Amino acid sequence: MPAHHHSGLKTCDITRVSGTKAEAVSDVLAVEEPLEIQVACGPASTRRRHSIAVTMRTPGHDFDLALGFLFTESIIARAEEVTLMRYIQQTSEETASSNVLLVELRPDVHLNEQLLSRHFYTTSSCGVCGKASIDLVNLHTCFSLLPAEPVIPADVLHHLPQVLSEQQDVFSHTGGLHAAGLFNAEGRLLLLREDVGRHNAVDKLIGAALQQGWVPLSHHLLLVSGRAGFELGQKALMAGIPILAAVGAPSSLCAELADAYGMTLIGFLRNGRFNVYSGQQRIRIA
Amino acid sequence: MPAHHHSGLKTCDITRVSGTKAEAVSDVLAVEEPLEIQVACGPASTRRRHSIAVTMRTPGHDFDLALGFLFTESIIARAEEVTLMRYIQQTSEETASSNVLLVELRPDVHLNEQLLSRHFYTTSSCGVCGKASIDLVNLHTCFSLLPAEPVIPADVLHHLPQVLSEQQDVFSHTGGLHAAGLFNAEGRLLLLREDVGRHNAVDKLIGAALQQGWVPLSHHLLLVSGRAGFELGQKALMAGIPILAAVGAPSSLCAELADAYGMTLIGFLRNGRFNVYSGQQRIRIA
Repeated sequence: MPAHHHSGLKTCDITRVSGTKAEAVSDVLAVEEPLEIQVACGPASTRRRHSIAVTMRTPGHDFDLALGFLFTESIIARAEEVTLMRYIQQTSEETASSNVLLVELRPDVHLNEQLLSRHFYTTSSCGVCGKASIDLVNLHTCFSLLPAEPVIPADVLHHLPQVLSEQQDVFSHTGGLHAAGLFNAEGRLLLLREDVGRHNAVDKLIGAALQQGWVPLSHHLLLVSGRAGFELGQKALMAGIPILAAVGAPSSLCAELADAYGMTLIGFLRNGRFNVYSGQQRIRIA
Repeated sequence: MPAHHHSGLKTCDITRVSGTKAEAVSDVLAVEEPLEIQVACGPASTRRRHSIAVTMRTPGHDFDLALGFLFTESIIARAEEVTLMRYIQQTSEETASSNVLLVELRPDVHLNEQLLSRHFYTTSSCGVCGKASIDLVNLHTCFSLLPAEPVIPADVLHHLPQVLSEQQDVFSHTGGLHAAGLFNAEGRLLLLREDVGRHNAVDKLIGAALQQGWVPLSHHLLLVSGRAGFELGQKALMAGIPILAAVGAPSSLCAELADAYGMTLIGFLRNGRFNVYSGQQRIRIA
């Protein structure tokens, strides 16, 4: 399997469900890891480091990423303003990749302090590594999940994407909005929110549930119309949601997060099929 | 057209191309506008406002969004810590919606200063309104686009998504990665980058082009595998790219940005069809 050797991919054991048939297979996930971008600037005597951004990215071409980010965000005006890029912290274990990148700027490059004070990129993640990001969630989560509740039959799961898309009053018109739907264990849609930003659709849904006094959502399922990255998994955990399902693919770090906290993670839920990445005990297949 | 009345939608005039046939039609785009979330906290004597985040969102359910964001990012622990939410600045013109939301916290709620110093959300945008965000780009862009170059035939455009997906060495395996491809006017793929984050794929591509000394990319086309929001349009403009094409839908603000800067914006480029939202002079249809 040549894909195995690609740094942007990670193999994992999953359960592939088609209709009411399940088989254990090996699958490939896109790797998601945080990258912290720091810049060093100023003349030697007053040279300082600034942490500019933490972004969840697929490792590979990190120098391109840092350079492109600094340029498109107007922090540098040309490639020549960068004298050197290097990783400054190795993650201690498991991964060979590094997640803190230091960009050295020419001493005469003037850094716009106002730009630096802007907020770049979401980060519920830690710039050091994925594992540290997963550990950080623990600091903030108030709710633990019940180990085997709720239990949802596979045929109920198969039906959910259709319910979501029927209820989307916008998506069908534009194809431009992400949707997040909150379901109970019987597959009834309780809340639906849409947004151009996938995080926003989930924040809107959890905010509405908070207003209703429903949090922790310990017997509920969250379905998202797109992919499931780390931050969607983190938001679901914050709200005590035990089952996260995505019409698209999950990332490696979302799968690791789900595994660490006992959350059920379902991906590619469409056309009578789905993959289970963790927490299979909450799904009744036959 | 009932969709017209939905605050999350905006109608616009586009050219719909199927094969080599073009027709002018009215279409509906998902609205994208920045929202700045501020919190006021502390006892009356020392009460202060903090700008917590600017996010590009679809207007509607903004209070849910702010509440869900503050909760999932651990800034508040329960809904009761919020005493009031209100818009504090009306956008002066065109839109009735507001884009700065103030969240009043109970005086006894202690705000974690460390959390506040974290970077939340990307923002190349302005929290006040979409128009201001578009104007801001002007401050930073070094390159203007040539008004009618390059010109790309429709049949070359139709072919690009296939080229992109054939060259993606990861996407086909996982379905989990966004791709960005840089093409010349003859439809030849010059660079391809992939990432779990769509912004990152574009930053990697532009960073690589910078390293090559190719910027400004004044005779090139950028194709993205997903949707085209404001920030992708802004990044393309920063690199001087005159044509942005997306396999998915553009947002309203990306279309307005493209229009303001004379950039050609193409959406839903797939299966022998595409929509042109602006800059049609760069496309030869027949």
